[in-house]
Amino acid sequence: MADLTALALICSLTPTPEPSSSELLARHVLDALQNQGTVTASLRVVDHNVMPGVRIDMGDGDAWPGIRDRILAADILVLATPIWMGHPCSLAQRVIERLDADLSETDDAGRPVMYGKVAIVAVVGNEDGAHKVNADMQQALNDVGFTIPAQGGTYWVGEAMHTVNYNDLDSVPEKVAATTAGAARNAAHLARTLSAAPYPAP
Amino acid sequence: MADLTALALICSLTPTPEPSSSELLARHVLDALQNQGTVTASLRVVDHNVMPGVRIDMGDGDAWPGIRDRILAADILVLATPIWMGHPCSLAQRVIERLDADLSETDDAGRPVMYGKVAIVAVVGNEDGAHKVNADMQQALNDVGFTIPAQGGTYWVGEAMHTVNYNDLDSVPEKVAATTAGAARNAAHLARTLSAAPYPAP
Amino acid sequence: MADLTALALICSLTPTPEPSSSELLARHVLDALQNQGTVTASLRVVDHNVMPGVRIDMGDGDAWPGIRDRILAADILVLATPIWMGHPCSLAQRVIERLDADLSETDDAGRPVMYGKVAIVAVVGNEDGAHKVNADMQQALNDVGFTIPAQGGTYWVGEAMHTVNYNDLDSVPEKVAATTAGAARNAAHLARTLSAAPYPAP
Amino acid sequence: MADLTALALICSLTPTPEPSSSELLARHVLDALQNQGTVTASLRVVDHNVMPGVRIDMGDGDAWPGIRDRILAADILVLATPIWMGHPCSLAQRVIERLDADLSETDDAGRPVMYGKVAIVAVVGNEDGAHKVNADMQQALNDVGFTIPAQGGTYWVGEAMHTVNYNDLDSVPEKVAATTAGAARNAAHLARTLSAAPYPAP
Repeated sequence: MADLTALALICSLTPTPEPSSSELLARHVLDALQNQGTVTASLRVVDHNVMPGVRIDMGDGDAWPGIRDRILAADILVLATPIWMGHPCSLAQRVIERLDADLSETDDAGRPVMYGKVAIVAVVGNEDGAHKVNADMQQALNDVGFTIPAQGGTYWVGEAMHTVNYNDLDSVPEKVAATTAGAARNAAHLARTLSAAPYPAP
Repeated sequence: MADLTALALICSLTPTPEPSSSELLARHVLDALQNQGTVTASLRVVDHNVMPGVRIDMGDGDAWPGIRDRILAADILVLATPIWMGHPCSLAQRVIERLDADLSETDDAGRPVMYGKVAIVAVVGNEDGAHKVNADMQQALNDVGFTIPAQGGTYWVGEAMHTVNYNDLDSVPEKVAATTAGAARNAAHLARTLSAAPYPAP
Repeated sequence: MADLTALALICSLTPTPEPSSSELLARHVLDALQNQGTVTASLRVVDHNVMPGVRIDMGDGDAWPGIRDRILAADILVLATPIWMGHPCSLAQRVIERLDADLSETDDAGRPVMYGKVAIVAVVGNEDGAHKVNADMQQALNDVGFTIPAQGGTYWVGEAMHTVNYNDLDSVPEKVAATTAGAARNAAHLARTLSAAPYPAP
Repeated sequence: MADLTALALICSLTPTPEPSSSELLARHVLDALQNQGTVTASLRVVDHNVMPGVRIDMGDGDAWPGIRDRILAADILVLATPIWMGHPCSLAQRVIERLDADLSETDDAGRPVMYGKVAIVAVVGNEDGAHKVNADMQQALNDVGFTIPAQGGTYWVGEAMHTVNYNDLDSVPEKVAATTAGAARNAAHLARTLSAAPYPAP
């Protein structure tokens, strides 16, 4: 029986319904989370009008407050992003910027609102950059209060200067599948554990 | 007499006419470039509809092709960005993503179209992250063909966990002003030099 | 009554007994961990002959196997490093390289040997780079199996281009002290929780 | 007739005469530089006692002053490093730390001593991290005064989670060879150009 919920924010530059490698890897993470008793959902950030800024609500037409509510309702956040020029995609950085406002939001016990939630990162690219993108995103999510489970990232990139995409592969390489499964297993365990034993108040 | 041109892309999250620290630092860079015989211009990226994607033109309403034309017409690019959560702003990454298309564009001699142009980076933040943002942006601009002059970055950040902005300062600290002047002086010299002696064709 | 143990690896470039800002910040983290029921110890990496390489034991005279035993015996690892040129110190990277060997070491249940341990990062510098150093180190420690507690980093840096050190300050700024205390509180809670409820085997 | 000199600092963790992928890629860069009229030399940093610290000379037994003299005598610096855990090798960071002292060294005209020199970066790894390592090293070298030529980096990494090395390849992939040749061609051109037209004094 599922007792956890996970939300994947897919930061592909390409709107639905175009194919997306970061969506595919996010789905693989979510499938693995379902195997761990998690109800999952996802959205592509580019399909929504997430306005530039660092307030919780940037006003008329801003889609972020609705997305933020879904993050607040979830136990696990999966941030899935392509790599462009070696960096997290602009939409992943946009998500991070919008989460910045929550650095100063606290619950009734005085804890940052994202405390107790677990985040994992899923990164895809043609050729290089996964560790760096993972580092950038894990640090930012951790700063805002998410806990990062052991080996809390999964990724695929091709050989240097190649142009194959994750969704061009005939099958997921075994090590990548094991890494995805491990990140999901650890995330679910940690979310369950932190739910039973929340971080103490300051 | 001015023989060079420079364009500053200001990646503030805040639209004109709101005050912007990255605009202020960009202006200081442009002032210094004017002292070196450069005609300067600037724009805030957030004021324009730079669409997500990695093609030169993402279609209807995309403001990038016009901005790209202005980059192509300039000798020096100044990329000015705030730091958010330790990273380049989402609009700076958007610019980088749009420049990605030019990795495969070449001139008549077979050289990448951005060869011969010089780029410098200007970074502002409340408290931390300038070297990393500089590294991320210099590498991406260099990948796409820009040359980075000696000490080709300038920045200001406050002490850890402080909230003062560059445009809150009574005056520009002397070392920061010297760094800004040096980056501009080197950029102008290098752009002039590369204009007289272009990179050879492959 | 203390039921946890923590080890701080201090990556200052300066040997004992010279003063060291990273040692001072590490001590502040360890003091905060002691308040959370943790027995603490520390060492400066530069005082020991940690040889270059990526095997668990690089042979004659290598001090790493002994340090690694102390990490394996601890519940919490504190990695404290200065910033040089915007990056983690060479000795912090040396530690990361030596931990690389443990990517393929597993316990009797088939879990990586560092699973269940918690890591936090403490960063000091004159002027800039803490978020990036934190990102680099958290990602590497997480890759090798450490869990990163919510807001699992603390840092101090001065204003851009300044030269004051953390150990020159008259007192620790309030926000920095609160960040240090929070990282320690969360680390102790998480280590205790993961000790009671270990990650499941693959 | 050769009118330029280049020095490659190879930051492999493995001493001579063990095989080294970063040495192999460095040689490919140096071969390409020779084709551009450059006399080349190289050394593995691990073969020398480069002591920890940030002064020009750390005292008895320190090999850095001799290496620094060789850098000062060269027109082009090639920094070649393996990737470990996504980051520049500890020896590459050691080199950067030692160059830190030259931030405040100036020539008779008041210019930083490294001004006029050109740096390129060569990065190898099993699977991921080249852009980030390139960014970290280019930014640090640029900070200390080196100019980075257009597309001033070359690299090879394998597919995600693979274990093949650059020196295991039957032949150098065509795009990698072209990138190496381009970086060398641009470095030689720029070094020659800056030698004829040095950066102006402040």
